[in-house]
Amino acid sequence: MPDASDLAPDVLSAQRRAVARALTAVENGLPGADDLVDALYPHAGRAWRIGITGPPGAGKSTLTDRLVTAFRERGETVAVVAVDPSSPFTGGALLGDRVRMDRHAEDDGVFVRSLAARGALGGLSEATEAACDVFDAAGYDVVLVETVGVGQGEIDVAEATDTTLVVLVPESGDAVQAMKAGLMEVADVFCVNKADKPEAANLVRALRSVLHLREDEAPPVVKASALGGDGLGALVDTLDAHRQRLAESWAEIRAERLRRRVRRLVEGRWRRDFWAGGRADALAEAVRELDADERAPHTLADRVLAGDLRRA
Amino acid sequence: MPDASDLAPDVLSAQRRAVARALTAVENGLPGADDLVDALYPHAGRAWRIGITGPPGAGKSTLTDRLVTAFRERGETVAVVAVDPSSPFTGGALLGDRVRMDRHAEDDGVFVRSLAARGALGGLSEATEAACDVFDAAGYDVVLVETVGVGQGEIDVAEATDTTLVVLVPESGDAVQAMKAGLMEVADVFCVNKADKPEAANLVRALRSVLHLREDEAPPVVKASALGGDGLGALVDTLDAHRQRLAESWAEIRAERLRRRVRRLVEGRWRRDFWAGGRADALAEAVRELDADERAPHTLADRVLAGDLRRA
Repeated sequence: MPDASDLAPDVLSAQRRAVARALTAVENGLPGADDLVDALYPHAGRAWRIGITGPPGAGKSTLTDRLVTAFRERGETVAVVAVDPSSPFTGGALLGDRVRMDRHAEDDGVFVRSLAARGALGGLSEATEAACDVFDAAGYDVVLVETVGVGQGEIDVAEATDTTLVVLVPESGDAVQAMKAGLMEVADVFCVNKADKPEAANLVRALRSVLHLREDEAPPVVKASALGGDGLGALVDTLDAHRQRLAESWAEIRAERLRRRVRRLVEGRWRRDFWAGGRADALAEAVRELDADERAPHTLADRVLAGDLRRA
Repeated sequence: MPDASDLAPDVLSAQRRAVARALTAVENGLPGADDLVDALYPHAGRAWRIGITGPPGAGKSTLTDRLVTAFRERGETVAVVAVDPSSPFTGGALLGDRVRMDRHAEDDGVFVRSLAARGALGGLSEATEAACDVFDAAGYDVVLVETVGVGQGEIDVAEATDTTLVVLVPESGDAVQAMKAGLMEVADVFCVNKADKPEAANLVRALRSVLHLREDEAPPVVKASALGGDGLGALVDTLDAHRQRLAESWAEIRAERLRRRVRRLVEGRWRRDFWAGGRADALAEAVRELDADERAPHTLADRVLAGDLRRA
């Protein structure tokens, strides 16, 4: 089996097959994938990474498709990463609903790829960042990362991107749907999609009143209709404005993201190596065989860490 | 400040004030909280812990209230833990919607408590398990843990309870809403609430067809109307049947849960201590000051773990 890091030169010269193989390598943690990412990383940092998230049925795929067209029209190349949720049980079914973006299939300036991220050390955030690094190093101007809008994945993707766009629809009822664990805090721009529906104004009002509770400046809320195309120009302008603000402190933002990423990698690596050293087996044995009054969770944790609970 | 572990004898003799103070201690990680949990743990393991989860608006609070009444009618004492989501920004707003269960306020056999779990090492799972341990050691027969139904919290609560009841409503559209990151895998019983609505039959059918994809036996789906009370008896019977199945391998289930819990505690403790040792500062400095081509995520992670990146 060849070492994935051999792909680096061909990724840097933007060869599509090498890009595809590099994505497979980082997604599955194939041999050499870490070295590949390390080789590409210094050449990345130029692409604009936009996370697109929101509840199922909010029209994220349609909006992603429209944004691809908008960026292509002004001459930028675009990669799309469609993030599959962590669950092997539901993954396929949810992705099945997605717009396939066939209309971009003939366009060499667009690369669409789904990402399952089951094998990557450091979880979905790391897999997403590594995929963005690959596209970034290959010279794509914009990387759109679309989530399926369920669970923790949204926060992971926000961690890995520059601009987080949260898409909502009037049907999703009140703003409670948007308050999914932490999503309100990470949003940089809100888009109320299907804005032609009568309840859209209510949703915009509810959102704005809730967003005033944020300690920093409230993010902008843009109304759009992805299907018809209304409001797309205003949305792109609003996203551009966020990118401009990022540019002012780009070096700091990039350093901070690298810091968080290295922390995740350190913790993932430690977790894997620590439990592999006989400790996992020793713990499993202890919880079965200890007397009832020795089964004290915190004391056991101390003993594992002290090396006092370790199979000979 | 007194040490929280002094509360153990009074918790074991079921004194309400001691129980309340013990919950505050484990929720906030007060001094002695770990020793308190260790002291109570050997006396816990008798209560039935039921997690109640599902999307916002599914009627979880009403159903919880009905289940309290049902268990009380057959003479069991009941504790309710209302889990607040992890986000300090949204927490209050979501909890504000809850039914307050005032009707049980005069009943000494019921104890209702909300849990924010911001300070606990080991996160929401640990805080939930510790709260259940307190109620369990104090002699409550049933502990109902109600989530707000957003984000990762649902899986954490499922980890911490014996029986996971997932509540859905026809309005939540198709079964996609139920497929939130891993929820389908952890459900032991489904309740389709507001079953008088015409779309209820469709939801039940969609659920059953999706659940057939699970590798183990498909969990039962029960129709109910929490507000009117229809189907409550069948739901309680179905929950009881699950409890019966648990009883057959109770010792193994409890050992397995303790094993996972100790793992979480070990990892939380390690994470806290590892980064405190000057490594967090050294990493922050490195990502700012290294040359661009030295900023390689995996190499940096290796260096942190090897102790080669540590402030003098």
